[in-house]
Amino acid sequence: MSLLAGMDTRTPSPPAPEEFASRFATALDDFFRTRPRLDAADELAGEIHALVLAGGKRIRPAFAWWGWRAAGGQVRGDAADATVRALVALELLQCCALVHDDVMDRSATRRGRPAVHEAFAARHRRSRWAGSARHHGDCAAILVGDLALAWADDALVTAGLPAAALARAWRPWQEMRIEMMAGQHLDLLATARREGSLEAALRVAALKTAAYTVERPLHLGAALAGAPADVVECLRVFGRDVGVAFQLRDDLIGMVGDSAVTGKPVGGDLREGKRTPLMAIGIARATAAGEHGTARMLARCLGGAPVTDETVAAVRAALVDLGAVDAVEEHIDVLAASGLAALDRADIDEEARTHLKHLAAKAVHRHV
Amino acid sequence: MSLLAGMDTRTPSPPAPEEFASRFATALDDFFRTRPRLDAADELAGEIHALVLAGGKRIRPAFAWWGWRAAGGQVRGDAADATVRALVALELLQCCALVHDDVMDRSATRRGRPAVHEAFAARHRRSRWAGSARHHGDCAAILVGDLALAWADDALVTAGLPAAALARAWRPWQEMRIEMMAGQHLDLLATARREGSLEAALRVAALKTAAYTVERPLHLGAALAGAPADVVECLRVFGRDVGVAFQLRDDLIGMVGDSAVTGKPVGGDLREGKRTPLMAIGIARATAAGEHGTARMLARCLGGAPVTDETVAAVRAALVDLGAVDAVEEHIDVLAASGLAALDRADIDEEARTHLKHLAAKAVHRHV
Repeated sequence: MSLLAGMDTRTPSPPAPEEFASRFATALDDFFRTRPRLDAADELAGEIHALVLAGGKRIRPAFAWWGWRAAGGQVRGDAADATVRALVALELLQCCALVHDDVMDRSATRRGRPAVHEAFAARHRRSRWAGSARHHGDCAAILVGDLALAWADDALVTAGLPAAALARAWRPWQEMRIEMMAGQHLDLLATARREGSLEAALRVAALKTAAYTVERPLHLGAALAGAPADVVECLRVFGRDVGVAFQLRDDLIGMVGDSAVTGKPVGGDLREGKRTPLMAIGIARATAAGEHGTARMLARCLGGAPVTDETVAAVRAALVDLGAVDAVEEHIDVLAASGLAALDRADIDEEARTHLKHLAAKAVHRHV
Repeated sequence: MSLLAGMDTRTPSPPAPEEFASRFATALDDFFRTRPRLDAADELAGEIHALVLAGGKRIRPAFAWWGWRAAGGQVRGDAADATVRALVALELLQCCALVHDDVMDRSATRRGRPAVHEAFAARHRRSRWAGSARHHGDCAAILVGDLALAWADDALVTAGLPAAALARAWRPWQEMRIEMMAGQHLDLLATARREGSLEAALRVAALKTAAYTVERPLHLGAALAGAPADVVECLRVFGRDVGVAFQLRDDLIGMVGDSAVTGKPVGGDLREGKRTPLMAIGIARATAAGEHGTARMLARCLGGAPVTDETVAAVRAALVDLGAVDAVEEHIDVLAASGLAALDRADIDEEARTHLKHLAAKAVHRHV
């Protein structure tokens, strides 16, 4: 082996995060360009394409890529290219989750566009078609989500991975999909049963967000690279903690964030009656302090009562006064620290470790 | 090679159709038994399990199996066993389609059980939970269908197929899924637009049923066996014709079948406003004959008007009198003949050809 080749191997030129982002963007484009064409499916496919390209922070593919690199996956070459293509699956799975969740939560907008069910319902109304516009929109959105889910699997299967890598990756991929659906189901049940406990809220957050935003993407990337069990375990602990912290941050931004910065109306979660750990802590603290009026006001928001701007302001003030916001901030710090400790224990590529720390910090200390 | 081994190869002991059925039943059981367990997903998984085991004629796996055998796939051995396991995917995809279609069509029952969305809505009502029982049921059914779709892909990927066979099979599998969803989307649009043309009805039937009931399952089986392009083409033509004939038979059974034999109420499709070729022919014939009152009565049934027992009887009589029932019977015969001609042209295993003819005859000349 030449000296030069040896040097290349020891000091691979690292991709800047932006470089992964641009490679991933190309892989996304390629995926959409190479879909089997079928006129009758064009509208469904168009919604997926528009939604995926309308934004999203690509946080799942980024965690998966650094899981791959952490476990020794190369920056360049056929295996790396196939891995980038495989990670398109994560954005498509997320697309399915968003489209179906928006039907369930009756959300009107998503990524600055009308939610898919709303777009189809609006066309139904504009066209003065027969039947219920709302039902028509929901039905079309079910199909859009179904197609996105099927395409997610297609992205993984047709990425050109070696058979062994596909088989390894399929295990976390199976777990990730069922966890995502189970998390959403728990959320439905908690809403129906008006469950307000912190435990229930954390369980939903762990399944619905943590698992499929950080833990399983990391696991998927590491599995693609053939990581040993101990590395997978450390990355998963890191991912679980950072994932829950990510969700808690999301809840804080939604409730007490600056809408001028986030671009979202404050209190969106509240209007949807979302049962967040933040709300659960608020209710528990109000009850413990004997502030039963405040506890009832908070609980009513989870019970499907209409939420006005005044309610949002009152809830926001109450959550700050009760110390619930500080408690969640503190919990985020504890989770981030324990996640980073797990990452430090992992026998992984040093450069990847640095990038993962950076990604984790961005995920838990963001403002949008 | 020993004489005995040579004889074994030339005259493989053929499985009776029942033998495939029992091998397939075992594969189904094994699939459910080996799913990753997750408490929070038990209810979703339980619905899939119950619905798949509650019935169904396993017509898709049977066509796929005989597509495999037609293209030279062996009866026994590792490859055959993996193929049987892979075909579980077809029943799970069908499960997704049924669960989501039932939400879209607002069907109350399926395979003698409450439809999934109805079961969850009923529990919501019984439990006096918060919010809309109907919406809760729909949401849970969306998740059940999603999980069935994910599991369909899992069945194919984890069947233990050689990598090349999986790659071959994945092409028709992709097409099949998108065709199924596109067909359902066309159906939604036709209903919303009150389209009554025969052309539109046949297009929906071709995509929604023919492709994914006969043509693509055959294609999938043949692809698993590595069939050459000309064999695939003949099998697909056969499958397309038989598939449309199958759907036309289904429409006849639903409209003029004997409910004592079928176990289903007559006119179910009518009550759902289903735009069948049978109805399109009836409307076209009534219009051509100047029977505008009859044409309007038939068209009203597609427009979402409430359908009484008297309406069903009147529509049934009109379709018979107009010759629409005979026309559909005739079209079934034409399709069956052209499908069988394509099958006769195919360079395939003779025993499989016999079985495929038998399956086709059963599919198009059944009473239930």
